[in-house]
Amino acid sequence: RYGYFGNTEKKQIKKVKLLVCIIDGCLTDGRICLSEDQKEIICYDVRDAIGISLLKKRDIQVLLISERNCSKTISATKLDCEVEVSVTNKLQVVEDCLKKMNLSWKEVAYIGNEESDVDCLKTAGISCVPADACAAAKTSASYICKSNGGHGAIREFAEHLLLLMDKVNSEEKRK
Amino acid sequence: RYGYFGNTEKKQIKKVKLLVCIIDGCLTDGRICLSEDQKEIICYDVRDAIGISLLKKRDIQVLLISERNCSKTISATKLDCEVEVSVTNKLQVVEDCLKKMNLSWKEVAYIGNEESDVDCLKTAGISCVPADACAAAKTSASYICKSNGGHGAIREFAEHLLLLMDKVNSEEKRK
Amino acid sequence: RYGYFGNTEKKQIKKVKLLVCIIDGCLTDGRICLSEDQKEIICYDVRDAIGISLLKKRDIQVLLISERNCSKTISATKLDCEVEVSVTNKLQVVEDCLKKMNLSWKEVAYIGNEESDVDCLKTAGISCVPADACAAAKTSASYICKSNGGHGAIREFAEHLLLLMDKVNSEEKRK
Amino acid sequence: RYGYFGNTEKKQIKKVKLLVCIIDGCLTDGRICLSEDQKEIICYDVRDAIGISLLKKRDIQVLLISERNCSKTISATKLDCEVEVSVTNKLQVVEDCLKKMNLSWKEVAYIGNEESDVDCLKTAGISCVPADACAAAKTSASYICKSNGGHGAIREFAEHLLLLMDKVNSEEKRK
Repeated sequence: RYGYFGNTEKKQIKKVKLLVCIIDGCLTDGRICLSEDQKEIICYDVRDAIGISLLKKRDIQVLLISERNCSKTISATKLDCEVEVSVTNKLQVVEDCLKKMNLSWKEVAYIGNEESDVDCLKTAGISCVPADACAAAKTSASYICKSNGGHGAIREFAEHLLLLMDKVNSEEKRK
Repeated sequence: RYGYFGNTEKKQIKKVKLLVCIIDGCLTDGRICLSEDQKEIICYDVRDAIGISLLKKRDIQVLLISERNCSKTISATKLDCEVEVSVTNKLQVVEDCLKKMNLSWKEVAYIGNEESDVDCLKTAGISCVPADACAAAKTSASYICKSNGGHGAIREFAEHLLLLMDKVNSEEKRK
Repeated sequence: RYGYFGNTEKKQIKKVKLLVCIIDGCLTDGRICLSEDQKEIICYDVRDAIGISLLKKRDIQVLLISERNCSKTISATKLDCEVEVSVTNKLQVVEDCLKKMNLSWKEVAYIGNEESDVDCLKTAGISCVPADACAAAKTSASYICKSNGGHGAIREFAEHLLLLMDKVNSEEKRK
Repeated sequence: RYGYFGNTEKKQIKKVKLLVCIIDGCLTDGRICLSEDQKEIICYDVRDAIGISLLKKRDIQVLLISERNCSKTISATKLDCEVEVSVTNKLQVVEDCLKKMNLSWKEVAYIGNEESDVDCLKTAGISCVPADACAAAKTSASYICKSNGGHGAIREFAEHLLLLMDKVNSEEKRK
């Protein structure tokens, strides 16, 4: 399962237009720090920020999703992504966004780590979990990262997507 | 000892009405961060917050206890639990709460990691320690987590409790 | 070397009146966090705070030393220890404190992790390094912790000291 | 490759006048923490700060570089180094600095961890990557640290540089 994509996935990869990424556990390692004056602190890895910018350079948009209301913190990341917070039904929220963006699920690459991500992982064109995702999420994804959430999983997924896109493109040219 | 409950525990599990959870070392990994302007920062894992919400959906209340005065920080977690801080005698504090809640020790699931938790771990209906608890606590608990404190131990304990509750319930129906 | 003390050390242990503890790398893991508004954040482990309180209950005083000026942050820990910051010559500072306290080096237990601690580690009655101390410090200490700095090394050293004190005391009574 | 320098490097080592060090991933472990009030927090290791001061005592200047605008945070470190932030072309920025300082690339020791560091790693007199650098950076460096970025890599590189300088100097005296 590591790094392997079958023929179905190859077709999907060409079409990816949007990466949907869960914030707590994928962009971060799931830890939330709280100060005495009740302000939240979250941490991300510069490598994942670079991964996001690599995708955006190739015209793949990025949507960040959280079940918590972390809009203030996430706007501080300067990652310049679409953000949906306080999400209770992830499938519904992604579908609403797809309508607005005029995209279909087949054009979605999804990275999530929780049981609440299982439906989206199964529905998206391509899906991925960090190495430390829960068991239910792992069995629903097409790709399992070697990296943990918050420690390079997004970068790893982004580089794989781009590598495979290049490969599929060059294979088609040869035909 | 990992994940195993005998017949005595099975009877207890059905009755669990309250999870008592130590903050420093169970909800957090025991680290306390301090800023120059003398404000405290503590960190918890979203997975453990999900574990707590799973229990509450099944009408199990949650009481968080700390020996330190961390009420400001803990109220920022939005975990919506009962909280007792600046606790010197854990056994006494839990007993006072049980009286108020009209519950008995047999209805308590307890997760702690320190020598000061030994009495409660032995008295509670069901008890649990994170993988990195001190030796004295480990030998007093009915369940030892694979996860460390602050890194999923509460989630792991919550899922086991719920799984076993379901199992015991379905066994009874079959009779 | 792990956990072993010879006859010389046994004599020393009875006399320990003061623990000198380096802040960066022993009380903390050596990491310093800095916020954009130029405020410093340091982290310590509750287990080490408990270790310090165990020593104080047995009338062993604790002196915290840092080469940096972290007095604001350290006063927030509420550890209630003597503190010396902005220290350039550790040996000199400890000697000044010993004079004030009317103590000798033989009554000092010292925990440090850096090359700048070598002289003190060699001079103190009993000395200790965290598992992740630098090589020069390790070869100068009478005890090497299994725990890393900032992750229980002080607690481990405190418990060993108290255990050995009890052992030496009970041995003497038997004579 | 670990710790080994050939004859070419030996000649270079004598001439090192400037250490160029990437901030995110070398001075730090690449993690960026963000508070709700949109303030950034970064963390470094005291051991690396000591490494930088060791170099400065031997008249080797230190230039810190970041692709992000982290000038406020980095000025809080009190590391007293030259700093260039918001850098898009690292090679160009280093060259501009070298002109101002009247130095050549042969006098530069460079530590970086990313693909964007490859050109500088290849051009500098001596170059180094942390153990957790990306593959492209690793193959471009003359020295690979055992330590990770943000956890002693700069200290390790500094000590090696100074050790080798001493060795080369003493070898020359013997001739």
